[in-house]
Amino acid sequence: MQKAGLFLSFCPPAWRSVRMVSSEMARRYPLANKVALVTASTDGIGFAIARRLAQDGAHVVISSRKQQNVDQAVAMLQGEGLSVTGTVCHVGKADDRERLVATAVKLHGGVDILVSNAAASPFFGNLMDVTEEVWDKILDINVKATALMTKAVVPDMEKRGGGSVVIVASLAAYTPFSGLGPYNVSKTALVGLTKNLASELAARNIRVNCLAPGLIKTNFSRMLWMDKAREKSIKEMMHIRRIGKPEECAGIVSFLCSEDASYISGETVVVAGGAPSRL
Amino acid sequence: MQKAGLFLSFCPPAWRSVRMVSSEMARRYPLANKVALVTASTDGIGFAIARRLAQDGAHVVISSRKQQNVDQAVAMLQGEGLSVTGTVCHVGKADDRERLVATAVKLHGGVDILVSNAAASPFFGNLMDVTEEVWDKILDINVKATALMTKAVVPDMEKRGGGSVVIVASLAAYTPFSGLGPYNVSKTALVGLTKNLASELAARNIRVNCLAPGLIKTNFSRMLWMDKAREKSIKEMMHIRRIGKPEECAGIVSFLCSEDASYISGETVVVAGGAPSRL
Amino acid sequence: MQKAGLFLSFCPPAWRSVRMVSSEMARRYPLANKVALVTASTDGIGFAIARRLAQDGAHVVISSRKQQNVDQAVAMLQGEGLSVTGTVCHVGKADDRERLVATAVKLHGGVDILVSNAAASPFFGNLMDVTEEVWDKILDINVKATALMTKAVVPDMEKRGGGSVVIVASLAAYTPFSGLGPYNVSKTALVGLTKNLASELAARNIRVNCLAPGLIKTNFSRMLWMDKAREKSIKEMMHIRRIGKPEECAGIVSFLCSEDASYISGETVVVAGGAPSRL
Amino acid sequence: MQKAGLFLSFCPPAWRSVRMVSSEMARRYPLANKVALVTASTDGIGFAIARRLAQDGAHVVISSRKQQNVDQAVAMLQGEGLSVTGTVCHVGKADDRERLVATAVKLHGGVDILVSNAAASPFFGNLMDVTEEVWDKILDINVKATALMTKAVVPDMEKRGGGSVVIVASLAAYTPFSGLGPYNVSKTALVGLTKNLASELAARNIRVNCLAPGLIKTNFSRMLWMDKAREKSIKEMMHIRRIGKPEECAGIVSFLCSEDASYISGETVVVAGGAPSRL
Repeated sequence: MQKAGLFLSFCPPAWRSVRMVSSEMARRYPLANKVALVTASTDGIGFAIARRLAQDGAHVVISSRKQQNVDQAVAMLQGEGLSVTGTVCHVGKADDRERLVATAVKLHGGVDILVSNAAASPFFGNLMDVTEEVWDKILDINVKATALMTKAVVPDMEKRGGGSVVIVASLAAYTPFSGLGPYNVSKTALVGLTKNLASELAARNIRVNCLAPGLIKTNFSRMLWMDKAREKSIKEMMHIRRIGKPEECAGIVSFLCSEDASYISGETVVVAGGAPSRL
Repeated sequence: MQKAGLFLSFCPPAWRSVRMVSSEMARRYPLANKVALVTASTDGIGFAIARRLAQDGAHVVISSRKQQNVDQAVAMLQGEGLSVTGTVCHVGKADDRERLVATAVKLHGGVDILVSNAAASPFFGNLMDVTEEVWDKILDINVKATALMTKAVVPDMEKRGGGSVVIVASLAAYTPFSGLGPYNVSKTALVGLTKNLASELAARNIRVNCLAPGLIKTNFSRMLWMDKAREKSIKEMMHIRRIGKPEECAGIVSFLCSEDASYISGETVVVAGGAPSRL
Repeated sequence: MQKAGLFLSFCPPAWRSVRMVSSEMARRYPLANKVALVTASTDGIGFAIARRLAQDGAHVVISSRKQQNVDQAVAMLQGEGLSVTGTVCHVGKADDRERLVATAVKLHGGVDILVSNAAASPFFGNLMDVTEEVWDKILDINVKATALMTKAVVPDMEKRGGGSVVIVASLAAYTPFSGLGPYNVSKTALVGLTKNLASELAARNIRVNCLAPGLIKTNFSRMLWMDKAREKSIKEMMHIRRIGKPEECAGIVSFLCSEDASYISGETVVVAGGAPSRL
Repeated sequence: MQKAGLFLSFCPPAWRSVRMVSSEMARRYPLANKVALVTASTDGIGFAIARRLAQDGAHVVISSRKQQNVDQAVAMLQGEGLSVTGTVCHVGKADDRERLVATAVKLHGGVDILVSNAAASPFFGNLMDVTEEVWDKILDINVKATALMTKAVVPDMEKRGGGSVVIVASLAAYTPFSGLGPYNVSKTALVGLTKNLASELAARNIRVNCLAPGLIKTNFSRMLWMDKAREKSIKEMMHIRRIGKPEECAGIVSFLCSEDASYISGETVVVAGGAPSRL
């Protein structure tokens, strides 16, 4: 009842012109007709972002490493009436990156948005125990592949006259998560990568920004919150009142990809429930 | 024609339930039924923010120091069909701050949102020429009055179960604008004030964030862009490709005040077209 | 015995020329013949800085608000064979600031170094309880007076061909200390003031830097560590293993004032035992 | 003559005890008896740091990739009466890292200080032209090898009861140098690595800090300043009045390694002549 009332109190007048309606539609669907790639988007924060971009009007191509996960996620979002397709993509492989872009171009004629969310499974332990192999894998997937995925998508964005990239880093870029050294360092690098890409791609009308989520309840962060004692200690340490939900990271990404963010580039937005980050 | 086509391509199905409709309305009007105070909002960035909050569904109380300016701004926004009223408010005066809050409570039953945009006219010159009086005025209006305006509004936000504050600082908080020392310093202080307020007000379900606009074309910044040579020099110095528009600062403020930003608090978002800011 | 051994093992060869000796003296006394003003230097961090500057060769003029405290501190440092004098100075008063500078000029012919350490007694409580008077006092003493003290000393530095200013802020500039809102905000402002002064005074060959101490054991911070439970909670919250000593803040200040720091200006150095600060 | 006068005016009294003398020696030679490894130290900033650490009393093991360069640098510094030896070390190779540490242990019984300065030759060009191979090389040498070099040295520091690590990053970590994307990103990562290492190694009494030099005149940065037009443009862009000298980076590193910096860990000090960096 209350919701119906809410609706009625905002019922727009009947005389609205086509122009007003289209302006309203633009506001309701700020990403209408945009084509978006989201990596690592069959679960957690990536999935929430993919759904939100689609809810906001985008055609979304989701992806991750396993066909089964892609199929499930696509089925779920299509079941919600959203324009979503998917393809397997291991961002560390050049062929996969190319195929992901090609899929979007073939299906939707181009690419406007890239959300780079893929990250290697984090190594949990002391920095003094980290081997060359661990560093290689984490820097490869989290830093190098992010740069190369962006590189792969830029030519098609340029053909569309511009675009928007959002890189998913982490609060840990600023305030290290204990026991996750290489992950933290790779995320700090992404904040720098964002600045560098933004500066270089401005001339092509491509904006590049970064999301730094705090402690969000996902499978990825399970090790941080599964053990109640550890969860409590992390929450105290980081002044966190509650753990965030993946959906709470999705709105800002859609915003950063929209025309509303036309003068925002090179910036990182921290979504961490007030945990200490930076000035 | 194109716009009508755009509309049709997104025409929602006819069978939508009341619940879906209300959810869509919530998305279309993310600030529906919210009551927002915006200081220094009869011109420039403040005006653009007030308009956007109203377009997004809020009842907005605009204010500034001169009745005539308030009247003009209210008339313009009401002419656009927006729910806007106004009152004179010099934020440096306790009585004015109280009256501004009282106006909102009387008209709309409470306050949900405060956008604190008021700033003293900047002193332009060398720091070595700044007098006690200049420091007093700028720290009074830009820092102290922002804290006290927030203090004035918190009890009424608390009665509503929570709220959202956005403080307007400046890129100059991070990268000083040459010749505007006390202004710059006061804006740096606001970034700190945001962190402090966010931390304290979290327990009352009030989020506090900050906007740091770069070089935006307003009367306030006229001295920075009016002279073509200076504009060129500033743009080069700050890697700015174009000067921003007030509207480009408004979307992010509305976003930060909305439910979509429920896990964002204590943060500053820089809107500066890629100018150097911070990691 | 061990110490004698240490000495012997470094005993410089006998043939050293005057030039080598003078170079060694410059290294041993990096501030030789420099004249330094240190405000709020009869106790705590300011006192440790004053002592260190004198140990490093400077003629130091110490100061604080009470004659008795000045007399005691001067007596103690003179008793250590250091070149120290003192004068009463309330940095919030223009006459006092002028007199402090005049004292140095009269005694030593000029001023080369200013360490601005004065701060108002912090207000301890919630930001929502802070009155106009508290804000006025804290912004006046911590921000405005720092700017004006610098302004007072610059002409005499310029006469000497340059100089060095160090402003004492706090870790709280970056990571707010709970319950110390206005203090924290004023310290954030000082980080900005440092940047602004450094930029403007570079043309006069004056470098301006900033010290941001963490939790240091002084009378000033007594409220933070006196209560054992609170001390424990602060230490946990800030990842602090031990509370710092005033002397641990002094070396970096002397360094920043020395020729060794000739290419460092506008920077803040955090001395906080590894507590979270910033990237 | 003037220098002799300077010396005389500071001539210490004759009655000084052994304890006072040893205290003075500690001040004159703050790194007395410390053993320091410096990578990439046969030229530029690394060489200046190695020389300074030795001048301040340390036994220094210098290293770089070519035997000839090592020989020349060792000869020069030994010719100045400094305690310096050298060995070839390619920090990207595990065997080389181990041999470097073993050399110090064999010659001097342990390691107290590591200055990690090695960096891959930077790729100059657009990020969109960077290949996998370039990313691999730069992340390998600049980030991974820095972490692994630290890992290699920690056990021997621990045996000595603690130690100090200084990582050489760059101003470009905060403010990207145009055309040097992967270099910039790797340097941002090092600022994060510093924080992470500092946090983990505190329990072993090892402090980890970071140096971020601005534009310093070295062979490494030749491409940035060799072309006069480019030099001018960079200097304007970065508000740089003059290019720094390697020696101007050395004092702060010695300071950070000394007992005077006992409460400084996890911090980055920017040495950039006032160029825009961060708050």
